[in-house]
Amino acid sequence: MGKENFVEQIADIEKDFPQWYTDVVIKTKLVDYGPVKGTMVIRPYGYAVWENIQSELNARFKECGYENAYFPLLIPMSFFTKEAEHVEGFAPEVAVVTHAGGEELSEPLAIRPTSETIIGNMYSKWLQSYRELPIKINQWANVMRWEKTTRPFLRTSEFLWHEGHSAFATAEEAEAETMKMLDVYKEFAENVLAIPVICGRKTEKEKFAGAVATYGMEAMMKDGKSLQSGTTHFLGQNFAKAFDIKFLDKDGAQKYAHTMSFGVSTRLIGALIMAHGDGRGLVLPPPVAPVQAVIIPIAAKKGGVVEACKAVKEKLEKAGVRVKFDDTDSSPGWKFNEWEMKGVPLRIELGPRDIEEGKALICRRDTLEKTAYPLDGLDKTVKQLLEVVRKDMLETARKRRDGRIVYAEDLDGILNGVESGNFVKAGWCGCRACEDEVKAKTAATARVFAEGETSKKCAVCGKKAEHTVIFARAY
Amino acid sequence: MGKENFVEQIADIEKDFPQWYTDVVIKTKLVDYGPVKGTMVIRPYGYAVWENIQSELNARFKECGYENAYFPLLIPMSFFTKEAEHVEGFAPEVAVVTHAGGEELSEPLAIRPTSETIIGNMYSKWLQSYRELPIKINQWANVMRWEKTTRPFLRTSEFLWHEGHSAFATAEEAEAETMKMLDVYKEFAENVLAIPVICGRKTEKEKFAGAVATYGMEAMMKDGKSLQSGTTHFLGQNFAKAFDIKFLDKDGAQKYAHTMSFGVSTRLIGALIMAHGDGRGLVLPPPVAPVQAVIIPIAAKKGGVVEACKAVKEKLEKAGVRVKFDDTDSSPGWKFNEWEMKGVPLRIELGPRDIEEGKALICRRDTLEKTAYPLDGLDKTVKQLLEVVRKDMLETARKRRDGRIVYAEDLDGILNGVESGNFVKAGWCGCRACEDEVKAKTAATARVFAEGETSKKCAVCGKKAEHTVIFARAY
Repeated sequence: MGKENFVEQIADIEKDFPQWYTDVVIKTKLVDYGPVKGTMVIRPYGYAVWENIQSELNARFKECGYENAYFPLLIPMSFFTKEAEHVEGFAPEVAVVTHAGGEELSEPLAIRPTSETIIGNMYSKWLQSYRELPIKINQWANVMRWEKTTRPFLRTSEFLWHEGHSAFATAEEAEAETMKMLDVYKEFAENVLAIPVICGRKTEKEKFAGAVATYGMEAMMKDGKSLQSGTTHFLGQNFAKAFDIKFLDKDGAQKYAHTMSFGVSTRLIGALIMAHGDGRGLVLPPPVAPVQAVIIPIAAKKGGVVEACKAVKEKLEKAGVRVKFDDTDSSPGWKFNEWEMKGVPLRIELGPRDIEEGKALICRRDTLEKTAYPLDGLDKTVKQLLEVVRKDMLETARKRRDGRIVYAEDLDGILNGVESGNFVKAGWCGCRACEDEVKAKTAATARVFAEGETSKKCAVCGKKAEHTVIFARAY
Repeated sequence: MGKENFVEQIADIEKDFPQWYTDVVIKTKLVDYGPVKGTMVIRPYGYAVWENIQSELNARFKECGYENAYFPLLIPMSFFTKEAEHVEGFAPEVAVVTHAGGEELSEPLAIRPTSETIIGNMYSKWLQSYRELPIKINQWANVMRWEKTTRPFLRTSEFLWHEGHSAFATAEEAEAETMKMLDVYKEFAENVLAIPVICGRKTEKEKFAGAVATYGMEAMMKDGKSLQSGTTHFLGQNFAKAFDIKFLDKDGAQKYAHTMSFGVSTRLIGALIMAHGDGRGLVLPPPVAPVQAVIIPIAAKKGGVVEACKAVKEKLEKAGVRVKFDDTDSSPGWKFNEWEMKGVPLRIELGPRDIEEGKALICRRDTLEKTAYPLDGLDKTVKQLLEVVRKDMLETARKRRDGRIVYAEDLDGILNGVESGNFVKAGWCGCRACEDEVKAKTAATARVFAEGETSKKCAVCGKKAEHTVIFARAY
């Protein structure tokens, strides 16, 4: 009955998705609430997922020529006022340090909500000649945005993220980089997180405060809502002018640089949970799972079982699999549920009869299929299976997502679409009033432009459509 | 004349050590000053050193059973007052957030100067049974201590560090862990940073605010001053009682846990610079050098030179060496100086004649020795040389340090000793007045107890000595 014990601890995913989410993140010990409202403690199991995400992204950024660095947490408040849109967007959610070292500060300091300003200030100091361009720097850091309603990973006052910042001689290069890094995100989301994403440009309303254009990648969660999972921003010369990022060009003229930035955060862990999780808990894609395979002994007290488990563990470790041998006292059934809840991609069961027959039972977390494989060559089998699971998880999520994209001709259509848990494609005239109207009537927002699609008329006002937009309710 | 151009940019290490330090950290682009007084920007070259330090320490911590996690930046001010000594020690240097999200907070929040309080609060929530002990968690994070006088890496208002925090059922285990992690630090300092360290217990005056006992590792810089490079703290039940970290023991009784903590920071980069640097700039130990070998073409325009350099680069990369091929337009002389200043352990010179003769010249940064080696098997040669450099750097630093430890019988002796750039061993009666007197008269402080040595009388008051103390001027 161990199974029921566990499952009943998690709210029913079909009946109460938000409570299911909260139960899963807390009970699998991914995260806990910090003592200050809106903050989270990322526990070892959650942080290990983050470290795997970091290592995958770091490799990709390095490939694109980025170097890591670290800029200060505290930014003079005056920096924010230098870029008009930026201050408007971020000032309301900034946390402010007014006292330090027992004294009141002469100027209040903001805890970074994002670092375009302070990095712009440094680039201005460093950059002299076109020869030093492009500058490509990435930072892994904590940032803070004071939010009224918070949920672990999805929206917390402090979160961890990376932010890439680059500067170029021309607008074309900066724009190309904005699109390139969006592609890098997409490839990462699909191949590493097994999450299919829709990428595209954001509306003026939804863009980053201070950007010329923002591009986002949107992922569909199991409840049909969208989670913005990463954004890239073409900043034009907005920050270059505000922070005096200039260089001496080949032609002897002083010119402003063109900059862009991009970031993803610990939100991605929320995306993983809600894109793949099921009634039993987490389902983690192999590339970021802290434990990729767990070995569970059956009738562990029988001679040879523990030894056989240890031998399999050693073999898998040598093959580079993140493996755990659960040799605790709990019953196999209890362990099955525990590790299913924790989303471990493969469970390897080994009992006396299996050993006798020279095989092991492997249960896939994503499909719950159980198959016997020969112990001989089990390391290769496991590695192949992990790869199959990764691909299948992506395809399963893609099919689910593709089946939940609908078209609408009017506001009612958008409302019906999102209420049934869909992404809705609809025409939009391009005006803010119509965009606001959609939100007011349907609680859906414009996620991204559906690239390459052309609607004839705006679903709100009926005028000529300028864009096809993907509307969805969003986290 | 490129050489002179460079060398003259750095102050003379013999004449003005502090200016030499500042010149080196800024001109090698390890670091820059942030816009807020006392903050630093860790530039890519410096951050790469930090990443290498992290990866070496992470492997060691994992070996000791630690898992990484992340706790919130902001700590309620009330947490600090729960441990009387702790608040006294840290409150004066705390940065305080009073406003966030456009409103004044009901309780001011401290930016963590260290995380014993908030981690204690969480451990209290998590810990229930003796079965869950020990808890061993490590965090990589930024912390903030508002300092009046700051210097890059050595003392900055914000710095990066790791902090390990563990909880045990018994005092003996917590004390043993405190000593074990000190040993881990020592092994790391010597084998990775090539810095010989002296480890020992700190006096009551110098201990961590709230600890029962603090142990430190002290490293001698080239000016004879000491740099505290890492500390481990046995916290007894001080924080367990303040934060209610309790567990149900085997015997059915509720008991307070015994905790310990330990940390090293970006200060270590300062230690590296001042323990090994010379008149030409940095000398980086191979395990943490961002570039371990730089290839410089001689007469690069002659046929085959660039190709030969590229082939060597590829071979070294395959062997796991962090290698750079400097194919810029600058002259070889200019490059020599640039990479010497940046402290790259090995320089590989390749010209047409070398290639003809099937060899390459390798110049060691630590000794400046230049030797020709066959191109055949150069990957193995380079790997062996990096290991030789690492060992020799440690031995060189150890010999220098050992030659600068003297004994003193009285205050004059301590003063003479430290003024000549030595560590001074002297007897101490154990009273605070005498410790203060040493500082007042000599500007030296008690670094650590010299374990195993027994002085007869206190160098200040002449009474019976309780300890032999290592006194030094310190960063």
